[in-house]
Order: sequence, then structure tokens, then C-alpha cells
Amino acid sequence: MSALDDLLTCLRFASVSTDSKFNADTRACAEWLVSKLTGMGLTTTLHETPGHPVIVAKNKHLEGRRTVLLYGHYDVQPVEPLAEWLSPPFEPTIRDGRIYCRGATDNKGQLIAHVSGLAETLAEHGDLPVNLTLLFEGEEEIGSPNLKPFLQAHREELACDLVAISDTGMVAEGVGTFTYGLRGIACMEVKVHGPTIDLHSGIFGGAVANPATMAARLVGTLHDAEGRVLIPGFYDGVRDLQDWERTSWKDLGDGEAETLALTGAPALFGEAGYTERECRWARPTAEVNGIGGGYQGEGSKTVIPRESFFKLSFRLVPGQNPERILDLAEAYLRAQAPKSVRLEIKRGHTGSSYLMDPHSPYGLAAQRALQATFGGQIALIREGGSIPIVQAFKDVLGADTLLLGLALPDCQAHAPNENFPIANLEAGIRLNQALLRELAI
Amino acid sequence: MSALDDLLTCLRFASVSTDSKFNADTRACAEWLVSKLTGMGLTTTLHETPGHPVIVAKNKHLEGRRTVLLYGHYDVQPVEPLAEWLSPPFEPTIRDGRIYCRGATDNKGQLIAHVSGLAETLAEHGDLPVNLTLLFEGEEEIGSPNLKPFLQAHREELACDLVAISDTGMVAEGVGTFTYGLRGIACMEVKVHGPTIDLHSGIFGGAVANPATMAARLVGTLHDAEGRVLIPGFYDGVRDLQDWERTSWKDLGDGEAETLALTGAPALFGEAGYTERECRWARPTAEVNGIGGGYQGEGSKTVIPRESFFKLSFRLVPGQNPERILDLAEAYLRAQAPKSVRLEIKRGHTGSSYLMDPHSPYGLAAQRALQATFGGQIALIREGGSIPIVQAFKDVLGADTLLLGLALPDCQAHAPNENFPIANLEAGIRLNQALLRELAI
Repeated sequence: MSALDDLLTCLRFASVSTDSKFNADTRACAEWLVSKLTGMGLTTTLHETPGHPVIVAKNKHLEGRRTVLLYGHYDVQPVEPLAEWLSPPFEPTIRDGRIYCRGATDNKGQLIAHVSGLAETLAEHGDLPVNLTLLFEGEEEIGSPNLKPFLQAHREELACDLVAISDTGMVAEGVGTFTYGLRGIACMEVKVHGPTIDLHSGIFGGAVANPATMAARLVGTLHDAEGRVLIPGFYDGVRDLQDWERTSWKDLGDGEAETLALTGAPALFGEAGYTERECRWARPTAEVNGIGGGYQGEGSKTVIPRESFFKLSFRLVPGQNPERILDLAEAYLRAQAPKSVRLEIKRGHTGSSYLMDPHSPYGLAAQRALQATFGGQIALIREGGSIPIVQAFKDVLGADTLLLGLALPDCQAHAPNENFPIANLEAGIRLNQALLRELAI
Repeated sequence: MSALDDLLTCLRFASVSTDSKFNADTRACAEWLVSKLTGMGLTTTLHETPGHPVIVAKNKHLEGRRTVLLYGHYDVQPVEPLAEWLSPPFEPTIRDGRIYCRGATDNKGQLIAHVSGLAETLAEHGDLPVNLTLLFEGEEEIGSPNLKPFLQAHREELACDLVAISDTGMVAEGVGTFTYGLRGIACMEVKVHGPTIDLHSGIFGGAVANPATMAARLVGTLHDAEGRVLIPGFYDGVRDLQDWERTSWKDLGDGEAETLALTGAPALFGEAGYTERECRWARPTAEVNGIGGGYQGEGSKTVIPRESFFKLSFRLVPGQNPERILDLAEAYLRAQAPKSVRLEIKRGHTGSSYLMDPHSPYGLAAQRALQATFGGQIALIREGGSIPIVQAFKDVLGADTLLLGLALPDCQAHAPNENFPIANLEAGIRLNQALLRELAI
């Protein structure tokens, strides 16, 4: 089918946004999308930004129709650790009805499902039932640094009644899932500097601070033994879970067994007093995404490294401000560090958490579209991931966002062997068509 | 001069013993030494071992002479971080009277000084004043795993009255230094396993243990805030410093200022109640030589890594048994780890600490040789580094070891830009000759 061919083509671009050595591949992916959308009859523009390009495409907007902005991203996560991929990460490979490739589920599979739904409708009817604006960016995996300024600069051109995004998950195969909340994010990298040179750990060990030890000690001050974050003020203002949410999430079945099976972790570990779903969807975290320092090779090297680092990301929930969390974290880490090391703290991207009312008119329209596509009971969930741009749509365009995800729990987003079921590509095409029908006035 | 030429030749061999990709260079270095020693008229044998070869060379041993075993090692540390070298690590480069190259001071410069001293004496007199056995190995930097078995297997052939080694430091330029004690060592690598795959930190963060965080937390349990090791039993039996040692070390001048200048550390950091020299020379430590896990590249990657590691080495002092320390450390770390991660602990090399009486007859002979070479007051010190084989010489051959180091504090052993002064090469030649004269009966 042509949707599958399009997806395979799109996947072959190694559009890793965080690493500048993939800049040419990322641009090639954007240019391919522009040519695809133009070919469908949409008025399509590639907009330069200080980073990767933004693509905007529109049908002819008519008075009296609802305007829907459909957002997606064509950039992908890095592929490391490369050795764990069963097939090359940028060579899409089909096994057991799933397409394996970096970006298969996050976000190219879901993006191409919508594009293909639109292409079918346009081919059949010559137009769409709504005024549609497509907005595709290439910097979602690095926190969309240029998209909010872009929205601000193109506020008129992008004006819409609401936004729809497929970049989230389904609770299980075949279960239509409406995501009404997301966690926010705030990233920081901490470098711990000690001596100006690597030192012999025999000659100097015992008299100078070891930056690797000190980095570890700093990380060790972030949580109590049960995983609760110890940064003073971290939980201030955090919105409590509502009773209907706790009940409805319990009804989704045994999340603990599923998470154990999906992760292969020896045991679960999380904040006391919350179920694992509540921990993942509605409680904030502090995670180490990378730590390093000293000798990394085979065998031993008896060295005191001159520096060490750790990369942190905080997942945030309604009531927490990302910049304030970084302020608190930085102040706390600096207060914990002894004067025998020097901290260098670099702030990374941030994004607000998001929450909408699933029982609002647009929320109900989304649920009807999911019902038409998947049948059965629709799951109402929040998600632990972050799509910072959702808050920007609210702030700049004044629009709520419908999150209608197509990823399954075992699609391995961000991990080796990322994959996307062909069935979900097909369902996504129908979902796109049902959604636009439901939103037509 | 021919000694300098010989040293430059020896330095060009990239004899990194810990990394098997340098095996051919390490062997080539051994073979060059065999040919050099044979050419000097010594009976020289290259002995195969399960690892890198051992070289034994002798003059003709005569009844009634003292037998001296001179030990050295031709292997070197890895060169990482490569970017910090001002000249290529295996291309010896002379700047301001110093030879810059990996191994320049540890141990090739000191080894070649002795070889050159012997060569001169042999050329001039046709023999040496003692029965000499040279024993050079290629595994000192990985803990000499095959040398103790070699000593045991060749106990008769290696029988000697005493051992001499130049593989330690001088307290300052031109100050003859006799080292009468060394710290021991015990290494271990700890891997922390969590989920079976890298996880999206948004989707799963908060419900599973993060192996990078847990590795850091484990490291964080090793010390109190002042650097004292918290492993129960770690300090049991540790021999107290003697009053004459504390006094004599204080007389060496301001160690704190020197260590700050040498290391460039923002401040010193060490166990309360001990001077920095006491911390480095006579107190045990637990150091992280390497830590790693998760994303190591540019930018951020919001991942929970499936595993993380840290490499530990303990420096030990008289009264501590290396194997027992590893037992205690392993039990402690396993007790600290939550059941949400799995620890994999691999033990590395160990070596006992060493202590001899500097006022014994051989100790006094060594001091006279140093006096003849350098003049002035001779410094009596212990060192923080480890030469595990020194204990093996005591255990297997029943011989004490004289440690007559030629390294200056800023020779950067184990670090980038390792170097050795040409003046110390020349002094080492004279020291070799003076020592053999002093030890002749």
C-alpha cells in the first residue's frame, strides 16, 4: 500500500535532531515531506528556523468551517546503544506485522498515518471536511526550542479552533485511548570538576575529592530510599489526583504486571502511596539519563578523573513550573557540593505539563472518533511523557489539544528496536478520517 | 647519549597491558629489551606466561657475592583521555629537558636508567660488583597476575638477598628519597542491572528503578561527608602511624600547598585528623576510577538506561587484607542495593601493602647510595601507590625491597603528558652504580 511505502521512505532518513552530524539527513526528511504534501494538493511551505525546518501545509481554508491544526514531528531520538538493534536502526525491517526502525512509532508512523488519511480523503473528495493546517517540526526530541517562537511569529497563519496530535500511546492493542494529560519536563546537565588533570589514585587518593565519587554523591542526595525527590520545594503546588482518575485508572487492569513484563525490571520501584500508573502519569520524577567519568574501557585504570558528569531530567506535573524546578535543583545541588569540587550546571530544555477536560465538547468528539475507529470502551488516561508544545498551543494559539495516540506499550519508543504495527498505521488512517468528520460543523 | 636513545626507543612501543589490542606492541617491547640485555653480555631469557612475557637477565653469579634482584616493568597505563596530550602519547617528545611520553616515568625511564647504569659498568669493568638478576615484567599496571606464580615456579633461579626497584617518587627535584612503605590495592567493578531494555524516562519514569541513579546511590554509601569509608570493618586492624613518621613527614615542608599546586584541585579533601601526606601515604581509601551509564553524547536523551557501572579501587595499608576488604565491600554493596536492581560484581586485581624498616642495614645502604647520588638530606617516606609484587618478593623470595624512586611529583604518572626529566635519567644511572657498590660485600 502507498501509506506503507511512504512510511518506509520517511523512516530511512536518519533525522536525529540532537546530533549535528545528522543535520543533512534531518533536512532531507523535511524536504521529502514537503514534496509529499505538495503532491497531495496542499499548499506547503518549508520554514527555516535557527535549527531544523518547520513545515506548514494547508488545504484551502473556507469561511464557516472549523479549523484544525494537526501537529507531528519528523525528528527522532539517537539510536545508541547500537549493538542492541536486531536490524539496522535506519533500515526499516518488517517482522511479524511490525515495522522496526528508529522513529517507527515516535513519531513517523503516527505522522504518516495522518498524512495518508488526508491523502485518501483528498483523492476521493477533492477536499477535507475542515480547514486543516499541518504543522510538522524537526526538534521535538530536543524540546522544540524554535517552535514556540515560530507559533508566536505565525500566530495568524496558524490560528485554529483546536489541535490534534498522535504522539502518545494506547493502553493496549485495539483499545482506543484518549490522553487528556501529559507530564512536563526540565533538563539539566551537571559537570563536576576537581583536579585540572587526571590523577594517579595511589599517589593522590585520600587527599583530594574524586569528581566521579562526588557526582555520584550528588545524585545520591536527589531521592530518599523510596524514590521521593528530596529537593526542597519540589512538590510545592503539585495538583492532587482526582478520585475519578484513580478509579478509572484502576479499571484499566493490572498495570504492575504489564510494566514488569514490558521493562523486564527485577521489581517495580516508586513513590509510596501511589500505584505504578499514578507514579508514571501523575507524579513528578528526577531521573539520571546519563552519568559518566573516568575510565570507561576494559579492565581497570587506577585514576582519579578530573571531571565527571550527570544528565538529569525532571518529569513534572500540573502545579510545577519547569524553570522554578531547575532553580530549586541547581540551588540544592550547589548547596550539597563540597568546596573541593566545582560544579558547572547547564540547563537544557523545559516544557510544561498539560491537562484538559476529557468531558469537554472537543474531548467527547475525540472519544467518538476513537470509538468509530476501534470500537469498545475508550480509555481515558494521562501519560508520563512530555510534549511541551501542547502547552505552547494553549498559550499562543489559545487552543486545546486532542491526544489520540497510536503507539502500543511495547513499541520501544526511544529504545533499541523501536517498532510500529502495520495494523496501527491502518487504524491511524481511519482515525484521521473519523476525527475530521467528527470535528466538521 | 646512548641511554637517552635507548629510552626513546623503548617509549615508542605502545605497551598498554590492560588492553588486548596492544598485545603485539607489548611483546615487541619485551623482545627489544631481551635483545638490548643480551647485547650487554647478560644471559637473558624471555619467559612466556598466560599473559605478557617476563624477562630474566643475569650476569655470571659467583660464590661469596651478594645477590641483588632488580625489578622493573615495561608495560604502561592506557593513554585516555587522548585529547589532553600535547604531543602524541607514544611519540617521545623532549620539551624543557623532559621527555614526554606514556611510560616515560612509569616505569620505562627508571628501568632504562638502571639498564644504562649496568651497561656502563659492564663496558668499563667487564662485570658488576654483585650477582645481579634483572626481572622485568609486562603486567604491573594490571596487578601482576602472573608474576607471583612465576616467582614461585622460579624460586631457585630468582633467589636473592634483596630486591631493588625504581618505580616510586622523589619528594622534590634533587632530593634523594627512600620509600619504606606502600599502600596495597583491591579492585572491583560493579554493574547495576535494571530493566532489560533502555526505557523512555517519560513513559516509565517513577515506576522502575533507574540503574544510573542506583549506581550513584551505591557509590554515595561508600563514604561519609568527610571521606571516611563507611564499609563496616574497613578500618579493622589498620596500623597506626608512628610518632617518628608523623614528625619526619611534617619536616618535609608544606605538603598541602604542593598537592594543591600539582593537582589544581579547588581544595583538598580528606579524612579528618590526618595531614594530607598521612592521608595519601598511610590511610586507606575507596576511589571510583570510572562510572558510566546511559546517554554519553551531546545534548539530552530522555532515557532510563538498562544498566550502569562503576569501577572501584581500594588503597590499603598495613593491617588490611585485600581479599577481606573485597568481601566486606561486596557484602556492604549488596546489602545497600534495593531489590529493584541486580548487582553483578567482578573482582579485579589485589595487592598487599608493604612496610620495611628504613633503619635496617639494607635500608641504610640504600640511603648511602642516595646520598652519594643526590647529596643533602635523604627523605624517608611511604607512598600511596601500590607495587603488589613487593609483598610477593617478601613472601616467596624472603627478600626485602629497596624502593629508590626517580619520579618527580609533576611527572604525571598515569595521566596525560606523562614525562621524565633527562636529569633524572642521568641521576638514575649514577644511583644504579652507587647502589651496587654499597651492596657489594
